[in-house]
Amino acid sequence: MDEFSLIHQIRHWVKRTPPLTVELGDDAAVFSVASEHQVVCSTDMLIEQIHFDLHYTSLYDLGWKAAAVNLSDLAAMGASPRYLLIALGLSRPQQNLRIKKLYTGLQHLCNRYQTKIIGGDTVASKKLIINITILGEIKKKEIKKRSGAKPGDWIVVTGTLGDSGAGLEILQQGEMGHDYLKQRHLRPLPRIIEGRHFACQPGVHAMMDISDGLSSDLNHICQESGVGAMINLPDIPLSSPLLNYCHHKKRVPFQFALNSGEDYELLLTCAPSQFSKKNVRCKIIGKILPKKAGIWQIQPNGKKVPLLPKGYQHFH
Amino acid sequence: MDEFSLIHQIRHWVKRTPPLTVELGDDAAVFSVASEHQVVCSTDMLIEQIHFDLHYTSLYDLGWKAAAVNLSDLAAMGASPRYLLIALGLSRPQQNLRIKKLYTGLQHLCNRYQTKIIGGDTVASKKLIINITILGEIKKKEIKKRSGAKPGDWIVVTGTLGDSGAGLEILQQGEMGHDYLKQRHLRPLPRIIEGRHFACQPGVHAMMDISDGLSSDLNHICQESGVGAMINLPDIPLSSPLLNYCHHKKRVPFQFALNSGEDYELLLTCAPSQFSKKNVRCKIIGKILPKKAGIWQIQPNGKKVPLLPKGYQHFH
Repeated sequence: MDEFSLIHQIRHWVKRTPPLTVELGDDAAVFSVASEHQVVCSTDMLIEQIHFDLHYTSLYDLGWKAAAVNLSDLAAMGASPRYLLIALGLSRPQQNLRIKKLYTGLQHLCNRYQTKIIGGDTVASKKLIINITILGEIKKKEIKKRSGAKPGDWIVVTGTLGDSGAGLEILQQGEMGHDYLKQRHLRPLPRIIEGRHFACQPGVHAMMDISDGLSSDLNHICQESGVGAMINLPDIPLSSPLLNYCHHKKRVPFQFALNSGEDYELLLTCAPSQFSKKNVRCKIIGKILPKKAGIWQIQPNGKKVPLLPKGYQHFH
Repeated sequence: MDEFSLIHQIRHWVKRTPPLTVELGDDAAVFSVASEHQVVCSTDMLIEQIHFDLHYTSLYDLGWKAAAVNLSDLAAMGASPRYLLIALGLSRPQQNLRIKKLYTGLQHLCNRYQTKIIGGDTVASKKLIINITILGEIKKKEIKKRSGAKPGDWIVVTGTLGDSGAGLEILQQGEMGHDYLKQRHLRPLPRIIEGRHFACQPGVHAMMDISDGLSSDLNHICQESGVGAMINLPDIPLSSPLLNYCHHKKRVPFQFALNSGEDYELLLTCAPSQFSKKNVRCKIIGKILPKKAGIWQIQPNGKKVPLLPKGYQHFH
């Protein structure tokens, strides 16, 4: 089932955003929260030439991706996004019509998830800087943390991995074609619908989004939950465009799937007896083990090798 | 009454911040909102050499001020601050112990108003960048917007004006002494307590914080409310250190009070029959007029002159 019909089917999960009490333009924005709901929030800063390169990223794509990265943080908790605050650092030449394209990209993705831009700040800066704060709602019992994984849980991902990393490589090398992989890097889709699906399942014990790469992010879950894990590499979903690209370039697709980041698929663990896919696209790729068992990958040749966190290395 | 005893006296207004449902370190933070309350939020970006100069601003002061500017936005609405999210862009040399000082300054001011740091993002950057998002609570009926001023209202400010602007000038010129004025620039105090006091008064029709300068900010209220105004310059509270500085430098103190920004005092309008100062320090400086009357200042010589918005000019 494609995502659009899925959105239609489970629209009741993502209820209409209520009107603001105080709109943009005052000292602050004010909104109400439905009873029984809690507020979920996250903030992210993107800086030109560190997080994005305007040589191959259009301002529309940049706005889209800035929203996607933040929406994905809420998807990872199982929350419904509601509001977004944006602070922009802009150089003078960027103060023209072009910056409208950034807002258009941001707005298009926000509209898709009924998320309203409620505030912001615009300041002068030599480099383009985008800071987004996302606010959403969730019932307390539905919150999915990183720390709840239990031995015996299945390890599940919501889509193909490695596409974004390959897309980035292609963009950096200035190669033509490979539009699917480029798109997966430039316009990721936050898994809000899938996040809400799993939030409603008590058997889902831990959830996060894959931003650093599967090897690193699974290590995060294991650390936070005090467990080990084993993943079966042949079970990791890989896209045909990634397989084609790797075939031509003599690259190993699992290297992208394990260690390149920014796929923004969800990674979750679930009690096997309570696992329900329904119409949500996802795949079981391994199992949670006791902590003392360690963290492993089973390679296509059957060899068992430690799974080291080789994804994106943060600044500190 | 000094601010500390005031805090003690009206502590019931600023109730203890409840514990978070999800703490720092997960994909997002989660908190609950008291019933009948709404969420107030605002975001601000500060960039090195544009908004601050590390030659005369210590990292402690910078952390303090970054928190103060954001807390002041909530004070301007009449809200109680609760939570703060911080995103930092840091260069490698800043990744050492020194940045702890920034957090210490931020934390000290946040502690004073029981505001908890609940999330953040740290990224690499050549220039130091600080983006803060502040979240607070308020009852709907207590919200004070900029747009509610009515002809006949008194115009009120909560403290002396012009100190911060003079302090900035002194810091930029590298002059010794004048500690009070420098402090007013480097470590402003957000008027949270005063904001809560006025939020509880139905006679207060409009409120904002003075960040751009009185002349500009009063013009904002007049524009948003569709009214005119008249202020009496001799009624504007001026500090002795400002008067001394201006006397020595042959400067006009009202120039600082009207047109220099970052005092972070509150500017409000109130129906005279319902005005209650109680123990809150504030002063009546003028009156709201019908829109067609225009916006005026009465100078110390009795001359009536248009009050033009000559405060801080934003980037656009």
